[in-house]
Amino acid sequence: MSPKVPKAYLDARRNEIIEATTRTFMAKGFHNTTMQDIYDATNLSPGAVYNYFRSKEDIVAAATEISQQRNSEMITAAASGNKDQALSNLRHALLSFAKQIDLAKAASLDCELYAEASRNPRIAEALRKSQDTAIAQLFDLVKYHQNKGIFNNQLDPTAIAQVLVSMFVGFGIQKILNSETDLNSYMAVYDAIVSGTFSKEIDYREQI
Amino acid sequence: MSPKVPKAYLDARRNEIIEATTRTFMAKGFHNTTMQDIYDATNLSPGAVYNYFRSKEDIVAAATEISQQRNSEMITAAASGNKDQALSNLRHALLSFAKQIDLAKAASLDCELYAEASRNPRIAEALRKSQDTAIAQLFDLVKYHQNKGIFNNQLDPTAIAQVLVSMFVGFGIQKILNSETDLNSYMAVYDAIVSGTFSKEIDYREQI
Repeated sequence: MSPKVPKAYLDARRNEIIEATTRTFMAKGFHNTTMQDIYDATNLSPGAVYNYFRSKEDIVAAATEISQQRNSEMITAAASGNKDQALSNLRHALLSFAKQIDLAKAASLDCELYAEASRNPRIAEALRKSQDTAIAQLFDLVKYHQNKGIFNNQLDPTAIAQVLVSMFVGFGIQKILNSETDLNSYMAVYDAIVSGTFSKEIDYREQI
Repeated sequence: MSPKVPKAYLDARRNEIIEATTRTFMAKGFHNTTMQDIYDATNLSPGAVYNYFRSKEDIVAAATEISQQRNSEMITAAASGNKDQALSNLRHALLSFAKQIDLAKAASLDCELYAEASRNPRIAEALRKSQDTAIAQLFDLVKYHQNKGIFNNQLDPTAIAQVLVSMFVGFGIQKILNSETDLNSYMAVYDAIVSGTFSKEIDYREQI
């Protein structure tokens, strides 16, 4: 690359490649996408793409980093005001985000990459880093809720963070299988769980 | 197939093909598995396999039906005694099942199939049927808990069933990304959520 090309131009070109390739992955699947498909989608020559990325895996790792950054900012923003409301803010942020994208297609690509991770260390590393970052951020919020006596503090905060992540990830998967899966009523359950209105503790002795 | 071959033999042979193929899918991935791999794994000729299954998709559909049957029996068994304990029984049943298998490998194959479903109507139909069956069975249990005043009855019972499914599915995915993810502490969170000991309702007015 010529040193005279401004960095902003290079960054913009890099993002264009990531976006066009992600769209192709979503349409054809990661596995079925060839490097030729990427040249076609980006309107770039092999040499031009190679200046930025050496392989499909490189592009996936870069795309994962971008979505990790986005999730991270979402969690930070949700926790920036009244911390008692952070988990509820987070679900609002995720809800609006989910409404902007084709969630089934995005979830489908995520699933393909989870599967790929078990055979591809490069992808496994990128996804694990993204996952660990989200869990670590949620951990702090969970701990705050436990210290305040809102969440049961006998539970492992990491496990609570993992369950929260599962609720978000699981919705996407159900959306793949059934496009009528309703985001609002699903999110109302999440809200009830984190705000303590989901289930009442039953003392079985009272029923004897 | 000769009409003299007993049905039990045919069924056993069919199950052997499904099991050997599923193991190959788990090792190599659904996408990377060729029909030749299936002949090798089953020690059968193309003609012999073709007597039972016409394609990889056919085998996936049959395998999905078997796991749907197993899940269905698990839910029925969990609900057969004291219904108040059904969801807790269910997590015990799922926990023992999860400990028997290589959960990361099984989850990884599931994920590949979810992704495949968005492009393959045959697989989509098999997975959706399996998912719908589980949701419908959980719906009844959820409704029971709502009618008894245990679960919040303003929430959509289907959405609650979907969240429960997400908690199980999501664990498998986290196990792919991080093999140290701990099943027992995760399941303790599930237990607390269904038994009403996860979170306390906070009345914000009291804090003013």
